Amino acid sequence: MTFVLSSSIERLKEKIRTIPDFPRPGVMFKDITPAIGEGQFFRLILTIFIARYQKKKIDKIAAIDARGFIFAGALAHALGVGIIPIRKKGKLPYKTYELHYKSEYGEEVLTIHQDAISKGENILIVDDVLATGNTARTAALLVEKCGGNLMELGFLAELSNLKGRERLFPFPCYSILQF
Amino acid sequence: MTFVLSSSIERLKEKIRTIPDFPRPGVMFKDITPAIGEGQFFRLILTIFIARYQKKKIDKIAAIDARGFIFAGALAHALGVGIIPIRKKGKLPYKTYELHYKSEYGEEVLTIHQDAISKGENILIVDDVLATGNTARTAALLVEKCGGNLMELGFLAELSNLKGRERLFPFPCYSILQF
Repeated sequence: MTFVLSSSIERLKEKIRTIPDFPRPGVMFKDITPAIGEGQFFRLILTIFIARYQKKKIDKIAAIDARGFIFAGALAHALGVGIIPIRKKGKLPYKTYELHYKSEYGEEVLTIHQDAISKGENILIVDDVLATGNTARTAALLVEKCGGNLMELGFLAELSNLKGRERLFPFPCYSILQF
Repeated sequence: MTFVLSSSIERLKEKIRTIPDFPRPGVMFKDITPAIGEGQFFRLILTIFIARYQKKKIDKIAAIDARGFIFAGALAHALGVGIIPIRKKGKLPYKTYELHYKSEYGEEVLTIHQDAISKGENILIVDDVLATGNTARTAALLVEKCGGNLMELGFLAELSNLKGRERLFPFPCYSILQF
């Protein structure tokens, strides 16, 4: 059992910086770099993720490009499992499955290597921020397309007013911080 | 002292897949996904990095977008230090320093947050593959621009025939695998 003080969570939350009008006018961007730039806060994030997932028989972690790689890399190493990148079209060099979707920035295509997952493997998807949920939902569908058993999607932070969690339903979803 | 058998290194090397003509004709792309997709090989990579860097008084790890994030995230967590993303222009939301450089794919711009490093901090740069060294050298110059003390650049793999190590001189440079 891991105990994390709520005061620590509050201090972590204060380390997430809001940048108005990035990357375009009207968007309040959550900048996680001050939090991950300090060892104590990066460790705290991982301590919480590890406590949640270490007993869940995760076989591999699927990481959403690019900031998701940071947390997924650390968590995969801590759990002793492999890591699978899910990336924008044109970035993965081998045979891929791809899915088109609409993000807040327009039409996007997300891809996964066809040989990334063995049928029935338990997969955790990790990313930094859950906003509208469109990217995360597409990642979840790609994991299912590969035959993976999606256990959960885990995020550092969730922008609750954008209702990404509803968009992800019925996939289980967890976030350390809610804004 | 950590001992890693040379046979383990050979098996890891076999897990790096060469994809011809990616992302453009004539390039022999080193695909690391089969290596990091298996827990035992991802762990081996980190074991070697940790053994090399745990006593070196690293203050922060600077990670090159995007695959560098995977190793840097795991290593930063293992060493208990923070992680700093170095990204293409337009990806970092706060005030940045930027440097233009020529990559094999044309003119590129790499950026770092101006507040990412405190003066005199010991910085390790991590990326997956050292090719021509142009991106890595630009990352090194950005770390120096921020006042960081660049300890070393660490890579999973090095394409020796491209002489990236010479391009990085006099910055110290280390790679687990040489091709």
